[in-house]
Amino acid sequence: MKSIFRQVALIGKYHTAVAPALAASTRAALEDIANFLASQGCEVHVERDTAAVIGLTGFPTADAAALGTHCDLGLVVGGDGTMLGIGRQLARFGVPLIGINQGRLGFITDIPLDQYRTVLPPMLAGEYEEDHRSLMHAHVVRDGQVVFDALAMNDVVVNRGATSGMVELRVEVDGHFVANQRADGLIVATPTGSTAYALSAGGPLLHPSTPGWVLVPIAPHTLSNRPIVLPDGVEVAIELVAGRDASANFDMQSLASLLHGDRITVRRSQHKVRFLHPRGWTYFDTLRKKMHWNEGAA
Amino acid sequence: MKSIFRQVALIGKYHTAVAPALAASTRAALEDIANFLASQGCEVHVERDTAAVIGLTGFPTADAAALGTHCDLGLVVGGDGTMLGIGRQLARFGVPLIGINQGRLGFITDIPLDQYRTVLPPMLAGEYEEDHRSLMHAHVVRDGQVVFDALAMNDVVVNRGATSGMVELRVEVDGHFVANQRADGLIVATPTGSTAYALSAGGPLLHPSTPGWVLVPIAPHTLSNRPIVLPDGVEVAIELVAGRDASANFDMQSLASLLHGDRITVRRSQHKVRFLHPRGWTYFDTLRKKMHWNEGAA
Amino acid sequence: MKSIFRQVALIGKYHTAVAPALAASTRAALEDIANFLASQGCEVHVERDTAAVIGLTGFPTADAAALGTHCDLGLVVGGDGTMLGIGRQLARFGVPLIGINQGRLGFITDIPLDQYRTVLPPMLAGEYEEDHRSLMHAHVVRDGQVVFDALAMNDVVVNRGATSGMVELRVEVDGHFVANQRADGLIVATPTGSTAYALSAGGPLLHPSTPGWVLVPIAPHTLSNRPIVLPDGVEVAIELVAGRDASANFDMQSLASLLHGDRITVRRSQHKVRFLHPRGWTYFDTLRKKMHWNEGAA
Amino acid sequence: MKSIFRQVALIGKYHTAVAPALAASTRAALEDIANFLASQGCEVHVERDTAAVIGLTGFPTADAAALGTHCDLGLVVGGDGTMLGIGRQLARFGVPLIGINQGRLGFITDIPLDQYRTVLPPMLAGEYEEDHRSLMHAHVVRDGQVVFDALAMNDVVVNRGATSGMVELRVEVDGHFVANQRADGLIVATPTGSTAYALSAGGPLLHPSTPGWVLVPIAPHTLSNRPIVLPDGVEVAIELVAGRDASANFDMQSLASLLHGDRITVRRSQHKVRFLHPRGWTYFDTLRKKMHWNEGAA
Repeated sequence: MKSIFRQVALIGKYHTAVAPALAASTRAALEDIANFLASQGCEVHVERDTAAVIGLTGFPTADAAALGTHCDLGLVVGGDGTMLGIGRQLARFGVPLIGINQGRLGFITDIPLDQYRTVLPPMLAGEYEEDHRSLMHAHVVRDGQVVFDALAMNDVVVNRGATSGMVELRVEVDGHFVANQRADGLIVATPTGSTAYALSAGGPLLHPSTPGWVLVPIAPHTLSNRPIVLPDGVEVAIELVAGRDASANFDMQSLASLLHGDRITVRRSQHKVRFLHPRGWTYFDTLRKKMHWNEGAA
Repeated sequence: MKSIFRQVALIGKYHTAVAPALAASTRAALEDIANFLASQGCEVHVERDTAAVIGLTGFPTADAAALGTHCDLGLVVGGDGTMLGIGRQLARFGVPLIGINQGRLGFITDIPLDQYRTVLPPMLAGEYEEDHRSLMHAHVVRDGQVVFDALAMNDVVVNRGATSGMVELRVEVDGHFVANQRADGLIVATPTGSTAYALSAGGPLLHPSTPGWVLVPIAPHTLSNRPIVLPDGVEVAIELVAGRDASANFDMQSLASLLHGDRITVRRSQHKVRFLHPRGWTYFDTLRKKMHWNEGAA
Repeated sequence: MKSIFRQVALIGKYHTAVAPALAASTRAALEDIANFLASQGCEVHVERDTAAVIGLTGFPTADAAALGTHCDLGLVVGGDGTMLGIGRQLARFGVPLIGINQGRLGFITDIPLDQYRTVLPPMLAGEYEEDHRSLMHAHVVRDGQVVFDALAMNDVVVNRGATSGMVELRVEVDGHFVANQRADGLIVATPTGSTAYALSAGGPLLHPSTPGWVLVPIAPHTLSNRPIVLPDGVEVAIELVAGRDASANFDMQSLASLLHGDRITVRRSQHKVRFLHPRGWTYFDTLRKKMHWNEGAA
Repeated sequence: MKSIFRQVALIGKYHTAVAPALAASTRAALEDIANFLASQGCEVHVERDTAAVIGLTGFPTADAAALGTHCDLGLVVGGDGTMLGIGRQLARFGVPLIGINQGRLGFITDIPLDQYRTVLPPMLAGEYEEDHRSLMHAHVVRDGQVVFDALAMNDVVVNRGATSGMVELRVEVDGHFVANQRADGLIVATPTGSTAYALSAGGPLLHPSTPGWVLVPIAPHTLSNRPIVLPDGVEVAIELVAGRDASANFDMQSLASLLHGDRITVRRSQHKVRFLHPRGWTYFDTLRKKMHWNEGAA
């Protein structure tokens, strides 16, 4: 059984400086995986920063854009954060991604490092479950000009300053006034992001196939405030009405020092990220493990 | 400006016996509305039980099925409960509904009784906002046989008995195991139902256009349990694993004495209910008023 | 080192019929414990129903009242429910209780069955942590007459009927009107009960030393409703204003068919239950284990 | 009927610069109140900053310490924030406080400005309800040194930086380890503070007479995390284990830039603040109005 994927991108925790000892063990792991992929008939391309950070040599390297153009599969070794980071970059190329987890099980990266030799071959041969995740495209508009622009797989968050009381946010959906929200902040989350910060702030879970966003207020001033789920075809706009030192956050990127009148808009990106999972995978199995649903409290 | 709707069904609180004094005032209101509709060029058909309960004469009467077949608009005078009840019955006929509220503003019935003379004419002339609501079709299967079958616009609820501790429910989605839920009960709600019982139990709001259901546990035993939003194309199955005197509830209809092994399945109905609102209506305006979002707590 | 407790009551799951095989293993365990206690210099008295249910012979038996009068320690083998049940009965005698858990760790019964031989001796010698729990004394008053009277270590709950919509409850504290609560029900919980049903319904944890009760609404109709903590010196009164088939529950005892106007009053009992724990025990250690606080969700 | 209080301190929003027009109207109001108090037989002393900020002349002025020493009543004109601010300063003197509200009803300041002429006389004559509020005394310890020290009537809050992910906090109670909390922050609130920020973050209400604090996590990472109520005799210690740019907040005062290892300790102050309310006042009446409990959501 040979791989149906010929050009495979190998991506590690490319954005993080790593301690020498850790780099060595990660290098060994990635080398093993790369050789294993070659043995399955794949040509392996290592993401450029990954190679640099962990000192992996002997394979051609390329940046994300080149990987997106030339590869038909991405193999990501890291945690959910690494997976989301490269997912944002490769979304417009439609390259599917498989995640191998070095640490504990993630929501998305679900193949343990010590099992990839048995789990990968059938996946490479086409035996997998496909899981499409939507992305948000966010803009920050100031005085009529777009001053910031980002994709987000998890969430867009508008936050009060650390020592500056609450913010007041005017929320609109497709131009219709929703509410003036006085709170510590507001989260707009994708289904993928519904298990991240939005969950801590009291939001519901959204199955990845749900075509919706969820708006979750953080420590809202009005007690009857509740998370709202919206169809993901809408445009959500959040305007900073009051509050000092507010900031906006798009997955990992922050834009500090929002000004009154700044307007953050969120729309669905035209792209989706494709994750591949081992045959038999279901979202609910992962959820049950991550949420510890087998363990009662009393 | 004449009505674009020619055959109009007039429906009141048909399922409730009414005190004589109240019947008289309701009769007067319905007569006024019926005459007003006639003056707009409509032929008015009164729902048979409505006519009987409040003693309205002088107009042809028909049961719900006949109204569904012959009318091109339903005018409902009552509260959200009346609207949902007739909505379930007329769903398969595709007849749009307008709601006039006798009491305080509902989520759906948004025309105050004392304003219908100014609000209705443009709506009858075609100036309205259309709002489509999905329905759930639920079955109860016992020993392989369907023993109960109902439509629900709000929710399907499985409940423990009043004095009998919690139930254990096995939840599946499209045949995939989700969780064994130990709780007082479980709610499967439509977006319409997300502002009803599901909200009291801690569920999120779902915009009516969201193509999703929400599963909300009632007093769950596992603290990490959270409401889950699912795409509405799935089949949700709930099996009673443990617990005495459990019951199932479909909007207003109850099925008591569930047996262990009973399986309640919920699918999206092929029909939708069409509500018409005055031009300029938005869901968010109603939500803001009903949730008292203009009134802070501190 | 000899036991400072001379007359020790041994109590099992006395209120439950037990399968023959289970009775045999429980009998063996209780016999071992009884012999072990005797070897520590204690005179062992077996609770009468325990002896009958599991067929334990060879030791004097007595009912709870006699045990309360003559013993200076109770050793309970079972779960939290068994401990609370005998705690209620022995509260007025001030007999301290030690709990040995046959199954998984409880909030109160914290000595695993397979460790009692090492854990008990220092406790019998006086090396223990003492943990006092308050009880509630509840009355149901109908037409001016007390028709029911019970102690509760966990909670007093007023509940709607299983298929009958919500109840409306008028709540008063020390004769002051608090609120008309429309909900599925209302829980008044002790700190001990704050980790039981009240927690599932969304209530806070109360440290056992907190001199307070917590009122937790179940699926409240008003979204701004929140649990309220009260000093435990007050009298809480709950009157059934509306709702069919409502019931009241006092720990394990139910009173069905409440009538409109029935008034449930809750006061602190003059007695406390004394639990003994191994030296070094803290409530927080137990809490952390039972709440799975070492396990993050993401 | 003459006032039983002879030396009365008059306090306005002393800490805020005020627009000239507003100063004029506030000055007029304070002058009226001062003259009214004089007519009741009181000697009026105006708080020094109040007099300066709003330009009130004609009465002797004094700073808070002098007012605390010489006065037997404080009359506060402003909102809850003003009341809490002066309450902290006068706590050690035991001077009781009456609050007149210029804006909308507060939790503490419950006499509307336009009603003081009828409400105050019986109170000055000794007809009032007395309501004692506990305070927290907090210290920040860095490298074994106390670097900050404050009283708080509402809460002590440890917060993450605005754009810097969560904090990890080690919580201890009386030296016992409670939990390592990963969250946006943690609130320790008094009963008075339980209706402020703690409520927005999901905490319960604590009746003012409850001798307890409540610990409320803000957006906690562990889903099974819940608010915990503790007896107010304990010492709560919070140590910053991880997180950048964390800050601590004591009612209105902030301490930014906490360092890892910084330890915030919270104990009950030996003082209480005494609030006087009109005869017949109950906490529950205020709560019901502020929480909008008369208004259902559906």
